[in-house]
Amino acid sequence: MKIRKAVITAAAKSQRRLPLQNLIDRDGQERSVLAILIEEAVKAQIEEIGVVVWPGDEAAYEQVIPEHAARVRFIPQPAPRGYGHAVWCAREFTAGDPFLHLVSDHLYVGAAAGACASRVVEVAEAERCAVSAVQATHESLLTVYGVVGAQRAGAAGDRYRIETVVEKPTPTEAEQRLVVPGMRAGYYLCFFGIHVLTPAIMDILDETVATSTTRVTLSQALAQVAAKERCLALEMNARRYDVGARYGLLTAQLALALSGRDRDEVLTMLVRLLAVQEHVDRV
Amino acid sequence: MKIRKAVITAAAKSQRRLPLQNLIDRDGQERSVLAILIEEAVKAQIEEIGVVVWPGDEAAYEQVIPEHAARVRFIPQPAPRGYGHAVWCAREFTAGDPFLHLVSDHLYVGAAAGACASRVVEVAEAERCAVSAVQATHESLLTVYGVVGAQRAGAAGDRYRIETVVEKPTPTEAEQRLVVPGMRAGYYLCFFGIHVLTPAIMDILDETVATSTTRVTLSQALAQVAAKERCLALEMNARRYDVGARYGLLTAQLALALSGRDRDEVLTMLVRLLAVQEHVDRV
Repeated sequence: MKIRKAVITAAAKSQRRLPLQNLIDRDGQERSVLAILIEEAVKAQIEEIGVVVWPGDEAAYEQVIPEHAARVRFIPQPAPRGYGHAVWCAREFTAGDPFLHLVSDHLYVGAAAGACASRVVEVAEAERCAVSAVQATHESLLTVYGVVGAQRAGAAGDRYRIETVVEKPTPTEAEQRLVVPGMRAGYYLCFFGIHVLTPAIMDILDETVATSTTRVTLSQALAQVAAKERCLALEMNARRYDVGARYGLLTAQLALALSGRDRDEVLTMLVRLLAVQEHVDRV
Repeated sequence: MKIRKAVITAAAKSQRRLPLQNLIDRDGQERSVLAILIEEAVKAQIEEIGVVVWPGDEAAYEQVIPEHAARVRFIPQPAPRGYGHAVWCAREFTAGDPFLHLVSDHLYVGAAAGACASRVVEVAEAERCAVSAVQATHESLLTVYGVVGAQRAGAAGDRYRIETVVEKPTPTEAEQRLVVPGMRAGYYLCFFGIHVLTPAIMDILDETVATSTTRVTLSQALAQVAAKERCLALEMNARRYDVGARYGLLTAQLALALSGRDRDEVLTMLVRLLAVQEHVDRV
């Protein structure tokens, strides 16, 4: 199994402007959030990238990825029918191939730039199955994530066979269905925002989109895929930053800078700013 | 003299995307850089705002100032002929009235939100003349600013009568022409990015634009105005942040947050992030 396509979903109305925001990447280059994500995919050997957008956003997005126009195709999501529906909109683009999937409102800081998507693709190609990156997450954060119930798989210690997936479970629901043997109490395996998905997801979504009148979640479709074929959860030793959260861009920018080549410059700026601020406060 | 119009110049090609970037303001609201600037003007009792833009950027800018569309008029600058030319493009909009002028690549953090522009407008209306906000700036930064040569004026201690203006002087030039009596050695009065300008500036720019074949600076025109009529420099007790500088958006966002209602939240985030980072570094 060779992964050469990626789907980035960027159509959520409230977050449409996030991919356009500028950050300075770990290598000190100024780039849009969308360009940073595309580079994450490119470093994972992806050749073609489908970006699912709110109709009409194509031109604005194209402007912020000048280096990548040739490998990117924009796919409009005609109606805001949910995250699963956004992925489904890319079904002609994926055309029966497995694909890397990234959300557009998270950035990843791993051992090296682009290391997170590369790791997920590498494991999916080696294991020849769908792989969802996950991270042990405290139950206080269950309200924002898709959460997997799973059993440990293999000797590597970072892999789990997914048994079920629940979107934003309550703590009680999580305790009943999503406890993973061997994990610290109160912690669950929450999605990290990076998946390799197999064509099975599009078949399930085909049915769900045709029959559902409500918003289509990806978690529900992933649960159905996991009931049919082997799907792994891969625990990441990295950090994800939700750029859509309050002060999310600020936090992501600081995390990138502090883990990159401009660490000393940004630490100096921080200390100066805090000193000025203390001075202003005391005057 | 009542100031009711403002001109914001946002057409520089390399900085066209800056006004579109999102920040969280001191009051905790997410806003574009352009919206923050417009609110600075609105708090100074400005009723109509002309935004000078790169032709074609109107729609993108309009999207990021939904609350202010009614009081904003976009003015395209047809050719990149310099900062003075950008101001001159607004001559039909200002129509012989004095006006507040803000650059679009700086944000201001004063005692309260919007306090900087308000202060400049207040002094201009009281003194009935052009007023340029300035700040004592170390000579190492002369390469980025317009600098005034001036004499102290009045008893308030924060006002100077402008005698000349030089754009980005060399240290030698500054030492010969721009030393201000009573200032600390090595410090000069550099523009802060906020002015109240009188109609005289448009008359001077009319001539300069008609005769000049090079880029038209604002500093040169201001020097000519100051030779004809009384122009004051007003020393600001506030901070300006160049959002176009490297890590400028990050620095401005931190400065806004640390001087606003989310100070504790952002300090906590900073400490957490530094702790995670130290942990990652040591693993």
